[in-house]
Amino acid sequence: MMAYSKQHLIDLRKFYSNHLLNDTIPFWFPRSYDFENGGFLLMRDADGRLIDDDKAVWIQGRATWMLSTLYNTIEKKAEWLSGAKLGYDFLNSHCFDNDGQMFFHVTRDGKPIRKRRYYFSETFYVIAAAAYAKASGDESAAKKAREVFGNCIAYVTGEKKLPAKYTEIRPSIGIGVSIIMINTAQQLRETIGDNRCDEWISKWIKDIETYFVKDDIECVMEQVAPDGSIIDHIDGRTLNPGHAIEGAWFILHEAKYRNNDPHLIELGCKMLDYMWKRGWDKEYGGIFYFKDVYNNPVQEYWQDMKFWWPHNETIIATLLAFLMTGDQKYADWHQIVHEYSYNHFHDTKNKEWFGYLHRDGTIAQTAKGNLYKGPFHLPRQEWYCMQILEEAVK
Amino acid sequence: MMAYSKQHLIDLRKFYSNHLLNDTIPFWFPRSYDFENGGFLLMRDADGRLIDDDKAVWIQGRATWMLSTLYNTIEKKAEWLSGAKLGYDFLNSHCFDNDGQMFFHVTRDGKPIRKRRYYFSETFYVIAAAAYAKASGDESAAKKAREVFGNCIAYVTGEKKLPAKYTEIRPSIGIGVSIIMINTAQQLRETIGDNRCDEWISKWIKDIETYFVKDDIECVMEQVAPDGSIIDHIDGRTLNPGHAIEGAWFILHEAKYRNNDPHLIELGCKMLDYMWKRGWDKEYGGIFYFKDVYNNPVQEYWQDMKFWWPHNETIIATLLAFLMTGDQKYADWHQIVHEYSYNHFHDTKNKEWFGYLHRDGTIAQTAKGNLYKGPFHLPRQEWYCMQILEEAVK
Repeated sequence: MMAYSKQHLIDLRKFYSNHLLNDTIPFWFPRSYDFENGGFLLMRDADGRLIDDDKAVWIQGRATWMLSTLYNTIEKKAEWLSGAKLGYDFLNSHCFDNDGQMFFHVTRDGKPIRKRRYYFSETFYVIAAAAYAKASGDESAAKKAREVFGNCIAYVTGEKKLPAKYTEIRPSIGIGVSIIMINTAQQLRETIGDNRCDEWISKWIKDIETYFVKDDIECVMEQVAPDGSIIDHIDGRTLNPGHAIEGAWFILHEAKYRNNDPHLIELGCKMLDYMWKRGWDKEYGGIFYFKDVYNNPVQEYWQDMKFWWPHNETIIATLLAFLMTGDQKYADWHQIVHEYSYNHFHDTKNKEWFGYLHRDGTIAQTAKGNLYKGPFHLPRQEWYCMQILEEAVK
Repeated sequence: MMAYSKQHLIDLRKFYSNHLLNDTIPFWFPRSYDFENGGFLLMRDADGRLIDDDKAVWIQGRATWMLSTLYNTIEKKAEWLSGAKLGYDFLNSHCFDNDGQMFFHVTRDGKPIRKRRYYFSETFYVIAAAAYAKASGDESAAKKAREVFGNCIAYVTGEKKLPAKYTEIRPSIGIGVSIIMINTAQQLRETIGDNRCDEWISKWIKDIETYFVKDDIECVMEQVAPDGSIIDHIDGRTLNPGHAIEGAWFILHEAKYRNNDPHLIELGCKMLDYMWKRGWDKEYGGIFYFKDVYNNPVQEYWQDMKFWWPHNETIIATLLAFLMTGDQKYADWHQIVHEYSYNHFHDTKNKEWFGYLHRDGTIAQTAKGNLYKGPFHLPRQEWYCMQILEEAVK
């Protein structure tokens, strides 16, 4: 294969723009706006039919972020801003418990079904409120974004505590906190600005580099002991290649923001290299969901299935790595994962992507939206790739 | 196909006996006895290699029950009794928290890793302690079995409470409580006797019949609202055919215990009929893990995979239904599920069964033991089928 030509980059930009605006977004909006109760009705089967009117707080936040971001960066469409307002207002009215912690799952009219022992609802609230503040000019939204970002930091540092799932016998740290917080801080910084962000981002990147990236075995761990050592039990050995690759492109994004910081480029690229090698299925194509660091059997049942989102993250990571380094390897990988993904996940009949394939690429189930899938990873990928390609072909 | 002849039943008994004693049990024991720390080392790959030395409390209890039961019913082998003692002592020494609740996952030397908001560890303790009490004559084990059974009843009635996973907004009841408690009480009754059991079993069967078995749509629900109505959301619609079929044979077992009670035979058979129809994969064979009551997409990612245990439960249920009714349909189903299972799950090279197949019957991962799989469903099936066939061909 050849490194991508300028014309190819122009064509790719058109491809992603066309998919985002004529396929992915129209699947979801405006039909998912819930004018009756606020927020969005997103749990849909392949053909768009609603299969559940419950609302997943993560996805309400992510959809609010996506609509605000389209408004901020693509076009000042009134429909996008009013949709974002529906989501933002619903989050404020119904998704916070009295103790300040957010819920995970609520009814259509906003009554709480489930709260979890994590603060991912909060991180998606931060990016939603920040992007909405930029779109609307609403100062109170900016204030709330900064306030909930502060809560997230308090969870990170342990100043605020959530109930523990495990005992203290075998302490571990997860890469997930650093990954999600890097992106949360980047989004906050790049919409409304917040002078806490740069320092925290540096710290979280340093944590990833120090504790989770293992050059000796060419691997990015998903969790480790607090001193960075590998916990040689089933959970401790379980890798999530798509997640590590998502972290890789957040770091490459940071490198770009910091005038192509060479150390961050090197770090992001090696994380991608390590986990492409471990995560790509050479037999059937696609990114495995989980792998064991020593190739033992993985306990999570869906370990060899191909989910949509690791492919979105890998499409971004390989394209960004190519644009930043010019290394042909990344163009090759991008082409492979792009083609696999649009050939296997894209629903040419009803738009958007299927979410869940068997290892062999056949469709396992048809839902486009549920508690975990909604308008986020796919439209974010198409939007982000559009942005970086636009810069590249300028 | 033809209804099974007496000779076929004799051959089947030999088949199960041979598999149990020369294939399944020798895979696990004695090599899994942990003479250093007590209990069992059961997390093993296909070839028997240990992949984790942690101990799953459910499986420690189940293995203790299995070894005690072999000793009680097949042969007074000293090795089985001493193995059961290793498990029983480990459970007592390391698997109870100070508040009386049991842990879910402990280290090799019995330090707690995780406690869950359920009391399944307790139910498996009850059957382990009861069977061990019968095997050993240890009166204190009988006393403990009865005491922890009392704790389980206190959880069932709400007298003892565990932390809630969901809010009170959309209350639901699960069939799982009744199913596991019926079997726990049956085992307690049939080893050391307990005069609470008959009444509770009647109540739990009545609950299943009243709230979960839906004749109008020919279905056994996995959860419903407290009044038995179907909760039309993703979780509420999710069926677990293998689990309902396990419940069906516990009820058929109860029918047999109660002199072939015709009402219980009818109830057990219709539960099997309903869920065979919904759970059997007509395209590839095997029992689906989950189905949606209205055929919507199921959210749990492994919904169309073929796990070992629903097949063990269906082998028992179809054979028991045939032996109790003489209905040829059940002999046919038994033959189909027996052949599918021993052709797809059985590891002819290294013994025992693989646990996790893709929908199409190919192996998804090779572990024979982990946090959820161990020496229970398969040896219980082979043991139980031996017992009922022995009676049938007398």
